[in-house]
Amino acid sequence: MAVDRERLLQLLERPRYHQFLGLKLEKAEEGLVQIRLPFREDFLADEADSYVHGGVIAALIDVAGDFALITTHGRGLPTVDLRVDYLRPARKEDLVATATVVKNGRTLGIADIRVENPDGKTVAIGRGLYSTATG
Amino acid sequence: MAVDRERLLQLLERPRYHQFLGLKLEKAEEGLVQIRLPFREDFLADEADSYVHGGVIAALIDVAGDFALITTHGRGLPTVDLRVDYLRPARKEDLVATATVVKNGRTLGIADIRVENPDGKTVAIGRGLYSTATG
Amino acid sequence: MAVDRERLLQLLERPRYHQFLGLKLEKAEEGLVQIRLPFREDFLADEADSYVHGGVIAALIDVAGDFALITTHGRGLPTVDLRVDYLRPARKEDLVATATVVKNGRTLGIADIRVENPDGKTVAIGRGLYSTATG
Amino acid sequence: MAVDRERLLQLLERPRYHQFLGLKLEKAEEGLVQIRLPFREDFLADEADSYVHGGVIAALIDVAGDFALITTHGRGLPTVDLRVDYLRPARKEDLVATATVVKNGRTLGIADIRVENPDGKTVAIGRGLYSTATG
Repeated sequence: MAVDRERLLQLLERPRYHQFLGLKLEKAEEGLVQIRLPFREDFLADEADSYVHGGVIAALIDVAGDFALITTHGRGLPTVDLRVDYLRPARKEDLVATATVVKNGRTLGIADIRVENPDGKTVAIGRGLYSTATG
Repeated sequence: MAVDRERLLQLLERPRYHQFLGLKLEKAEEGLVQIRLPFREDFLADEADSYVHGGVIAALIDVAGDFALITTHGRGLPTVDLRVDYLRPARKEDLVATATVVKNGRTLGIADIRVENPDGKTVAIGRGLYSTATG
Repeated sequence: MAVDRERLLQLLERPRYHQFLGLKLEKAEEGLVQIRLPFREDFLADEADSYVHGGVIAALIDVAGDFALITTHGRGLPTVDLRVDYLRPARKEDLVATATVVKNGRTLGIADIRVENPDGKTVAIGRGLYSTATG
Repeated sequence: MAVDRERLLQLLERPRYHQFLGLKLEKAEEGLVQIRLPFREDFLADEADSYVHGGVIAALIDVAGDFALITTHGRGLPTVDLRVDYLRPARKEDLVATATVVKNGRTLGIADIRVENPDGKTVAIGRGLYSTATG
């Protein structure tokens, strides 16, 4: 990786909203990361408190895609656009996002992201476009 | 509207994650809502604490699109997919999402969402597909 | 407009695939175009020859979004990504796409596109991201 | 597969627009297809006749995703929405789309599609949502 693990952890753990999410780095190598979202009651979406909010999952996807590219760029990259497909509800359980770099261009990068529940079922998939341009 | 304002407020204010976001209903009529996201330090995205996290904006977009359809359906609708385009950073400021229904079918509905900052500049736009099927 | 109508027509009518589509410029002003797709049997999608192929509609959307930005840039811009939502089938009828510029940045532009049938019903909507960078 | 190869070929080769595209079925198994788009001058996008039109690639992606689901459904499925990311220009060369089923639900299915050039480079990736509901 073009960035050491300590710097990745700093980028992941320092931002205020990441602290709310409680994100944990499970794995990081060139072009690939796994990030865990430990379950919190504050993530619940509905009156019956039965499933995790789609906005929380979108955030996990956005962050994971960004970090897949950060492994080669060593700094946070602005999200240009983001697409999320929700496949099944996430219950009161941890979620793990796996993100891989699909394109790493001079001005734009693309990452694909899959979010799984503890049973290994896919909860959501996402695709993010990030600005890799400097300055 | 097919749903009274009291019920809308209940659906908006009761979920745990909506409470974290602190969402306020600014306007609601048939097929159109405006929802305010009052600024909170917990939304910040970066080490320098300078802008709001894209995942928070995605959540605002998801909720606003859902509520545009809720004005005719009277109940929360599952998000099928969501697309967000980020146009400019959101600073330490309130954001307002305006969502309008584009399609309201028997099984699927589409809403378009625009998020603006206090200067009236567009921060992000989104398009959400929601399941309107019953049962 | 930063480009004259003659140049727009040249850009629209010269490419081989545009010739197959038979695209007609209905309207062009700064940041807005209307392009007509006259019906052709070759566009049909199904065994029963009853509706226009989604790929033809995606092409119309792509071209219209590009031309909305061409009104200010005066040259064809590469499409970065494209999203199309299909609302209802298009029958054996002309379609008209109206495209408007949503963002016109230094490196990226966004256009929103709506495709209507002769009854004024929306057949599809699209959103395209285009590279506006020079060189 | 829930459908025999002969029926797949019929569904692929009969529609008028598929005939224009000249699509060839390279491979078909449960949940996976490969479809070839043999190069034609009519696909060219630009004044210099140098690359294939993004709308043609979008059509190839749409068809391939549909056919991945057709391997289990045995009939054409309406496209609900489609997203295409363009990675590099396609030159005067054949393109091959590989599509795999990501979700196959009672009302909706998702397919992921990758389009490669003869060098094995990815030209575009797509994700399509299709209606699997009957009646």
